[in-house]
Amino acid sequence: MTADHLESRRQEIVRAALRCFAREGFHATSVRDVVRESGLSAGAVYSYFPSKAELVAGAVEPILEALIGVLDAVVTDTDESLEEDRTPAETVAEVLRRIYPIAVGGELDYTRIAVTAWAEGLRDPAVRAIAEQTYGTVRGRLTHRVARWRDAGHLAADVDAEALGQVLFSTLVGFVLQHALLGDVDLDRYATALCLLLPRS
Amino acid sequence: MTADHLESRRQEIVRAALRCFAREGFHATSVRDVVRESGLSAGAVYSYFPSKAELVAGAVEPILEALIGVLDAVVTDTDESLEEDRTPAETVAEVLRRIYPIAVGGELDYTRIAVTAWAEGLRDPAVRAIAEQTYGTVRGRLTHRVARWRDAGHLAADVDAEALGQVLFSTLVGFVLQHALLGDVDLDRYATALCLLLPRS
Repeated sequence: MTADHLESRRQEIVRAALRCFAREGFHATSVRDVVRESGLSAGAVYSYFPSKAELVAGAVEPILEALIGVLDAVVTDTDESLEEDRTPAETVAEVLRRIYPIAVGGELDYTRIAVTAWAEGLRDPAVRAIAEQTYGTVRGRLTHRVARWRDAGHLAADVDAEALGQVLFSTLVGFVLQHALLGDVDLDRYATALCLLLPRS
Repeated sequence: MTADHLESRRQEIVRAALRCFAREGFHATSVRDVVRESGLSAGAVYSYFPSKAELVAGAVEPILEALIGVLDAVVTDTDESLEEDRTPAETVAEVLRRIYPIAVGGELDYTRIAVTAWAEGLRDPAVRAIAEQTYGTVRGRLTHRVARWRDAGHLAADVDAEALGQVLFSTLVGFVLQHALLGDVDLDRYATALCLLLPRS
């Protein structure tokens, strides 16, 4: 098989896994379920993903990469354009607005995948390691944004940028939870409300 | 058996269930596991909790009641004492400070229980109904707090109190997630940072 063919086969398995995870959660999904869902042979699936942890990693990787890509684009925008300087909360609201159509606009609702991945991360160190790495990156970007905002004089010089980065991170994951579990949160209203936090001083 | 004895037996089963849930998550725990953990007979456990959903409900009820009790105490404080009027974010920070020792100070880490309950709620309508009801109550209190803060002139008259209540709710559940999954969030630093949101105008 060509490299393109290999990659497209890999994608096919990832999509089958995502359908299973969205439906049943990570814990209740076995590699055998993914084999059945994909319509491929067990050997084919195992050759790409020798363990369930690798399947989980392969499944969440694209959305986590998209999230970090969106975040970087928004933070870079913010840092570079002095004209239209977003507050840290406006930065998070803009990330939410851009990631939302990617997360829930397709065949799958990634907010459901995320919630089930969190629970799996409590039990499976490999899944937890993915969460630590990715969420660590996201929080690092938010902390950086807060530090610049503080250093520009909008917050007191002794403000704890890391802790405030954790609070802002909560507004992202809290949206994910409310969307997946309660289903009554509206993106535009939430993002608009978010922008009221940490106003320009 | 006396009513006291019945209640103490019920508590014993709930504690056994909580230990199983904290260790394995809701999904991986069966009623049979709880029977084994409790050291009681299957008949005894089933007479109190005829289904797993009822066991889940019984297990999360005390902590959810504690959360709402703390929230009510803090919101009532805030609404009634005009001298020391907390901002909505300070209200959430105070709730976190008071609920934290209850949630993680005992034998069990309820932040782990919460994360695993969220995932279970995606699959089990009975668990989802508990989340909807309790979290609906919590968000309602936060919305009420925001509306009073807005009506006191600290926010523009057209601010969407419900959406801002959802954002504040995120700062609670986001703390829970970061505590359970990433384990690197410090209560005092987080609560202090939280108080910077929505400053007095």
